[in-house]
Amino acid sequence: MRPLRTIVCLAALLLIIATPARSQTAPPTAETLAIISLLNKSADDWNRGDLDAFATSYKNSPDILFMGRTIQHGYAQMLARYKSAYPSAAAMGMLSFSELAVQPLDARFATATGNFHLERTQTGGGNADGYFLLVVEYTPTGWKIIRDATTALRPPAAK
Amino acid sequence: MRPLRTIVCLAALLLIIATPARSQTAPPTAETLAIISLLNKSADDWNRGDLDAFATSYKNSPDILFMGRTIQHGYAQMLARYKSAYPSAAAMGMLSFSELAVQPLDARFATATGNFHLERTQTGGGNADGYFLLVVEYTPTGWKIIRDATTALRPPAAK
Repeated sequence: MRPLRTIVCLAALLLIIATPARSQTAPPTAETLAIISLLNKSADDWNRGDLDAFATSYKNSPDILFMGRTIQHGYAQMLARYKSAYPSAAAMGMLSFSELAVQPLDARFATATGNFHLERTQTGGGNADGYFLLVVEYTPTGWKIIRDATTALRPPAAK
Repeated sequence: MRPLRTIVCLAALLLIIATPARSQTAPPTAETLAIISLLNKSADDWNRGDLDAFATSYKNSPDILFMGRTIQHGYAQMLARYKSAYPSAAAMGMLSFSELAVQPLDARFATATGNFHLERTQTGGGNADGYFLLVVEYTPTGWKIIRDATTALRPPAAK
């Protein structure tokens, strides 16, 4: 029914299964798989241009936090910011993640790390890349992002 | 006995006490004060040129994680990296934090955010600024940093 999401989830699963020596850890837990699935769903929602669905990967709380040059707080503010910054399909582009990894903390919290790539036309703002560290919480509605430290890499200086 | 540390801790305490309206939260908990104190101690250790002491603000574990363009893991690797990157007092400079804040998660985990400023001579590498999101854990030896997402701001392009 949703082939893109299915392919992305399968790819993530294969990546995890195929790299036990690299991660040097036990096979992925249900927790890890659920968190990876959360992130892949968020990319899928983004790529459909559905920011309201994308936002639901975050906890609906005024306490969620986005670390950048200034700290931003809150679900409603996040959604408003995204809608302002990404007003069109061209501005949103196609989002993909790589090197996704989960580092469990306890039954309620975990961190997740990865790289992002945003494929966009020049009109849309051009491609963008970066990396992130997230804190995720197991809530009554499943795993949700509660802290987001995403760093965008600047493009190399023009020669 | 350690006037710099005392002054820094008092300044942090006064800052917290003086800004209840800004934070819009309850008075700082013992947890928050302990984590702020941990960070101030790390700056104090840095400014004495004592990287071994600085490192003890982190959990002594191979699982601690530093998010950057590549992920770095582990206490021993972190300490070796710091010693390689900051081989002299000039390269270390004077480290200070601002806008320190703690966001408790539960009795065992919290996040902390802030900005850093490194005051250095041109020979030492020049000044540097940035911001960070940390995850801290309450361990048998007190609160320790276990995840570190520090982003350095690049200096403005030369005109």
